[in-house]
Order: sequence, then C-alpha cells, then structure tokens
Amino acid sequence: MRTTVGIIGGGPAGLLLARLLHRTGIDCVVLESRARAYVEQRQRAGMLEQGTVDALRECGAADRLDAEGLIHHGIELRFERERHRIDFPVLTGGRTVTIYAQTEIVKDLIALQLAEGPPLLFEAEALAVEKPESQAPVVRFVHEGREQMLSCDYVVGCDGSHGIAQGAFPAEVSCVYAHDYPYSWLGILADVPPSCEELIYARGPGGFALHSMRSPSVSRLYLQVPNGTDVKDWPDDRIWDELSARFAIDGDWRLERGPITSKSVTPMRSCVHEPMCHGRLFLAGDAAHIVPPTGAKGLNLAVSDVRVLARCFAEFHRTGSTQLLDHYSELCLERVWQATRFSYDMTRMLHTQPNGDVFDRRMQLARLRRITASRHAAAELAANYTGLPLAL
Amino acid sequence: MRTTVGIIGGGPAGLLLARLLHRTGIDCVVLESRARAYVEQRQRAGMLEQGTVDALRECGAADRLDAEGLIHHGIELRFERERHRIDFPVLTGGRTVTIYAQTEIVKDLIALQLAEGPPLLFEAEALAVEKPESQAPVVRFVHEGREQMLSCDYVVGCDGSHGIAQGAFPAEVSCVYAHDYPYSWLGILADVPPSCEELIYARGPGGFALHSMRSPSVSRLYLQVPNGTDVKDWPDDRIWDELSARFAIDGDWRLERGPITSKSVTPMRSCVHEPMCHGRLFLAGDAAHIVPPTGAKGLNLAVSDVRVLARCFAEFHRTGSTQLLDHYSELCLERVWQATRFSYDMTRMLHTQPNGDVFDRRMQLARLRRITASRHAAAELAANYTGLPLAL
Repeated sequence: MRTTVGIIGGGPAGLLLARLLHRTGIDCVVLESRARAYVEQRQRAGMLEQGTVDALRECGAADRLDAEGLIHHGIELRFERERHRIDFPVLTGGRTVTIYAQTEIVKDLIALQLAEGPPLLFEAEALAVEKPESQAPVVRFVHEGREQMLSCDYVVGCDGSHGIAQGAFPAEVSCVYAHDYPYSWLGILADVPPSCEELIYARGPGGFALHSMRSPSVSRLYLQVPNGTDVKDWPDDRIWDELSARFAIDGDWRLERGPITSKSVTPMRSCVHEPMCHGRLFLAGDAAHIVPPTGAKGLNLAVSDVRVLARCFAEFHRTGSTQLLDHYSELCLERVWQATRFSYDMTRMLHTQPNGDVFDRRMQLARLRRITASRHAAAELAANYTGLPLAL
Repeated sequence: MRTTVGIIGGGPAGLLLARLLHRTGIDCVVLESRARAYVEQRQRAGMLEQGTVDALRECGAADRLDAEGLIHHGIELRFERERHRIDFPVLTGGRTVTIYAQTEIVKDLIALQLAEGPPLLFEAEALAVEKPESQAPVVRFVHEGREQMLSCDYVVGCDGSHGIAQGAFPAEVSCVYAHDYPYSWLGILADVPPSCEELIYARGPGGFALHSMRSPSVSRLYLQVPNGTDVKDWPDDRIWDELSARFAIDGDWRLERGPITSKSVTPMRSCVHEPMCHGRLFLAGDAAHIVPPTGAKGLNLAVSDVRVLARCFAEFHRTGSTQLLDHYSELCLERVWQATRFSYDMTRMLHTQPNGDVFDRRMQLARLRRITASRHAAAELAANYTGLPLAL
C-alpha cells in the first residue's frame, strides 16, 4: 500500500489531520490499532477551545457539535468556601469554550471519513516507522492477521504517548522533558444533571475537585486522590461525600447525586518531546506531549498541532516548498510550552501538595485571591484557558 | 518615661511611623539599639514604589529624595541572551518607581526627627515588651548603662526579623509561615557608573544576576550564589567575570567594571508572622514579615504597614474609636501575602534551582516568554512591581 501521508492513530489528532489533508487534495491513510467500537467509547476530555471548534466547523465536522455542544462563557474558581467567576467574553474580548466530549468528536470524524474517505483501517496495529530520514519512509503494521507495509512520502505519528512513532526518533536527536505529579484524578461519570451551569475548579479542604459535565443529563466529576489509589477503595457514597466536602461553600449550593456509571483513576504527567519532527516523520498530539487534565489542554493542543501541520502540508502541496514543513516543530513548540506551563501552574495552584507545608498553601491561596482581585491576572487565566493563537 | 506609642526600632519603619504620628499630634518615643553612625551606614534596599515616595513627600521627608532620586520607568528582563523591557507607565497607567537608597531615607528621617521631635534614643536596646494584653504595656530597655521602663498606651515593634517584639506574642496566638531558598545573593557596591539606565533582572547561564544602581556613579550588582558561600572565594575578577557572563546578550552591550567597595552574602527567606498585632502590641515591617530581595518589596512593605498603622492611630486619636486599630492585622496581611507571593514567584522564575531538572528550567523560560509576549502578564508584573494599593 502506498500514500502521500501515512497517519498512525485514529484519535482526534489523526482523524482531523486526515480530514484536513483530504480537503486540500492530499491523499493519506489512517491506521488505528483498535476496533471502531473501542475507539468510539474511550472517555477523554470534553472542553473545546474556540479554535478547536472553528477547526471542526471549517472542515464540515461540526453539525452535531453545533447542535449539542454547550457553550460556556466562564468557569468558577472555588476556594475558602467562596465562589468566584471568571468571565471569558468580558476578559478576552468575546471568546468562549464549548463542552462536547472528545469521544463524540471521534464518532463524528469517523463517520465522515468512512463516508467520504480517505482510507481508515481499524485493528491495524503499527509496529514501526522505518527509514524516517529517507525520501520514502515506511510504516510496518499488522492488519487482518498479516504484516503489511504502508509506503509514504511523509509519516505522522498521532498514536499517543505510548505509541510507536516516538520510538523512531534516534535517541541523539530527542529531548524528553517530563514531570510526574504526586497525585492522580479519580474521575466519574454520573447520570445526574450537573449541579452547575459552568465548570467549577475547587481547591477544597481535602484537595482539588472539578465539576464538569458531558451533557444536560450527565455529570463528569473529578477528585484529587493519592497516586496508586484503587477505585475499589472508593464506593459511591465515599466519592459523593468527598466531592460535597470539597465543593462546600458558605451559601446556598448543593451537589446533586446520582448513579455513577464509570470510575477511573488517572495519574498526572507533563511531558514534551523535542523536536516534534525527524526527517519525514512528524509527531502530533499526545505522541509529542502530554499535559495534566487541569485546564483541559490535551485535546486542544492535539488539534492545534494538526491544524499547523495541515497548513504546512497544504503549502507544500500548493507550491512544492517544504519551508513550512521544515519548521513544523518550532511552529508548534512555543504554544505547546505555554500550554504546558499553564496546565502546570493551574495544577499546582489547585492541588494539595502531599508534602507541602503551610507556606505552600498560603502561596496557593494568594495566587487564587490575586486572580479574583486583578483584572490582568484574571484576563491572563482566561486567555490561556480559552486558547492562545496558533503561530501559523 | 511614658508616651502614647512606644516604637521599638529606628529603621525606616519606626522612623516613618514616628514622623506620621508626630504630624497627627500623637506623641511617641523611638528606641534604637544601635548608634546613629551605624544606622546611617547600613546598606539595604533602594527601590521605592510610588506609594513609598508619596508617603515620604506627604510627611515632608522627600526634599533630598526629590532632588537625588532616580525615577525609573521600567525594568529589563534578560534571558536566553535577549533583552526585554517592561514599561511601567504604559502598563500601569503612569506609575513609576524611584531609586533612592534606604540608608539615605534613614538619614533624612533621623535629621528631621532630631530637629523636630519626637524623642529618638540611640543605643537604647529594648529587652522585652511586658503586658502587651493590658491597657498599659511597658517596654523594658537598656540605655546609658542602666535598665529603664517606657510606659505606653501602645507599643509598635519595628525591630526587624531578629527583634524582641515578636517574642512578646504568646506561642498559641502566633503562626509563622516561612520558606528558605536554596541560594543566596552575593551583593557588591562598585565605584563605576551603571552600565544601564534601568534595573536588569537576568536569568543567566550560571543563575540569576541583578544590575542595579545607587547613584549615577555607584553601581549595585548581585549574583545568585550557593548558600554558605564565603565572599573570600569571590575575588573581584571572578565576580566581574561571572556578572559579565550572566548579563551577556547577542548584541552590543558591555558591563563596565570598577573598584568594588563592598561585598556581602545574604541568604534568602520568606516569612510571614500572623497576626501582626496582639493586645496593644503591633508589628510592622521586617518584624512581621520578610521577603527575598527579588522584586524589592521589603522596604516598601514596611512603609505600607506603617502608613496603615498611622491611619489607624489617627482615627483613634480623632474619634476615640479603636475600630481600625483592631483590624490592623487584616488590613495589612492581604497586601503582605500578595507581595510575598510576587517575591516568591519572581525569585523562582529567575534563579537556577540547585536540584532543578530540565523540565523546571523550561517552565521558567515559558513564564519569562509569556511575560514578554502577553500584555496582561506584563501588566500583572508591572502592577505588583510598582506596588499594589493599600487596603486603607
């Protein structure tokens, strides 16, 4: 099999890139290691920056998003039993975010791609990228029980942080910058209408908690828990009690409870892989970088990577010049580092540090208070949260 | 001896408070443990916020400051061999800072106080504050070889972080929040015109460096050094070489060298003592809180404490109500914590962390880059640097 751009991974990064290339007239093939049903059920993020929504609209993949997505005009910071609203349009000159689950975006993009192309192979497990430095890199993969080759002009690894694309970078050209956090998130889905209209980021007595939602009838909530936490130790009542305690305020507000339909524990990590390109192999999304979920940058960074990459390919397709493609890594990395910084700072401001002393806790509170007291500090949070501009 | 307000410590906080009280018609006595010559030679900070300048002007202590102070309209951030200016008036709606050494302020205030009163006793060493909870607290002190008593209605400890006033707070009412930094500053005074018109905060290859000035002919420079550094290990050439390396940029700029007239190593600490008042005993300035010198908040916080306290006393004097005095601690502490946060964040952004990994360094760089790229982030730095408003 041969194609112009071989894309490893059928998550939102790979699928959106395929769609953007297809619409530019560049042919490509997407290899996804899992079955369609599995991919369409993976629970992931759900907060879309304005630019992410724009990108999906521009490529005709936003019909359902526009119908079902919940537009949010702000978030709430909750600490010391008080609530403080951050108003995005007021602070950013009109920008908003949209709540629409990543898994729904994936469904929408899969349906479009199966209807209109380009080829999308499920249960096609990439084994290795070969000769990325050459003019003719190859993706070796297993599909329908046999090993096959996908010959490409270019290869893009959208295969996540455990993918094989990263492994094709020689050790001497790669730098990996990583930070592991000393806590995890216990996340639940519950069949209960959200207790709030907007997301609540709470620094509660026992640690961080986030109140989010998937739809008007499904709540998504998270609790900071120690690393190594076993969900078995968290029966439903304990989860609701702890959430209620962390969201408690002086005043009239109550966390509604309902049947919990999913529970999982996710560790938190920041990681940036530099450069994001080697020869004719490019990385995008989690394959190149991971952020902790605080601030919801993971999916949005994946989308901004592939938007930049699609523009680089479009320029190459139109003019034959590789000038933009050659600078793909630099074009992405400043924004990647800024999102990494923002996620890191949001995480550190809101989570209880297991070995933190009272001074650390006072610094967290002073930061939170400053954000609620200073228009510039609030505007800086809002600008980062709603998404910084692309370099291209 | 008896007075209305007994002030322990003849540094800028104690002297300014005495002047402010005197002008309101409240009598007070200042006890300073050291000799006048010593006090007038102590080298300390030299960057005055607008509010500090205003306070000195309002009490008629700014003649020499107005003639000799250097008004600065910004600072420079230097990192990755590039220079970036932070323009204070543009970012804050017209605010500036003034370079004028603390030791000169002390000289000016001493001269005024000796000429116009209230009493100022040198070599008067306070030993203890007795009965701070009572209506008649007493300061026990040694002067001219014998122990004496100063009976007061109120006592104010302006006697610094090693003073005795703090010790009169019962352990059960005091909370001390402290953070020690894993590095120190090696500071020099040099008889050479400054190599720049404004302060330079540099994150250089070997760590932090600050270029400041005392006057048009005297430079004040600082280097981050490891804790426990002995100045003997830093001959002049080594200091200049290291400073030159940390300030180096791509482009035309040179650090001028000259005779070094003073060298000292200062450890860095953040500390806040809560509450700032107990009974009829108040703390102000370093007696209540210390900040690392990055951001130059120490002197300015001392001045803002005594401005608030003078207003509380004035209200009491005018109306007989202790309502403001009773809230002195709360009226100061939010601003104290914000300055503590700002100093901590500036320090952590610019200094090399001895055990820091490459991820930490990238976070520092991302923060610096964001400040130079975002108007809100720059304005937030400028607002904090030029000084937040008083609560009263």
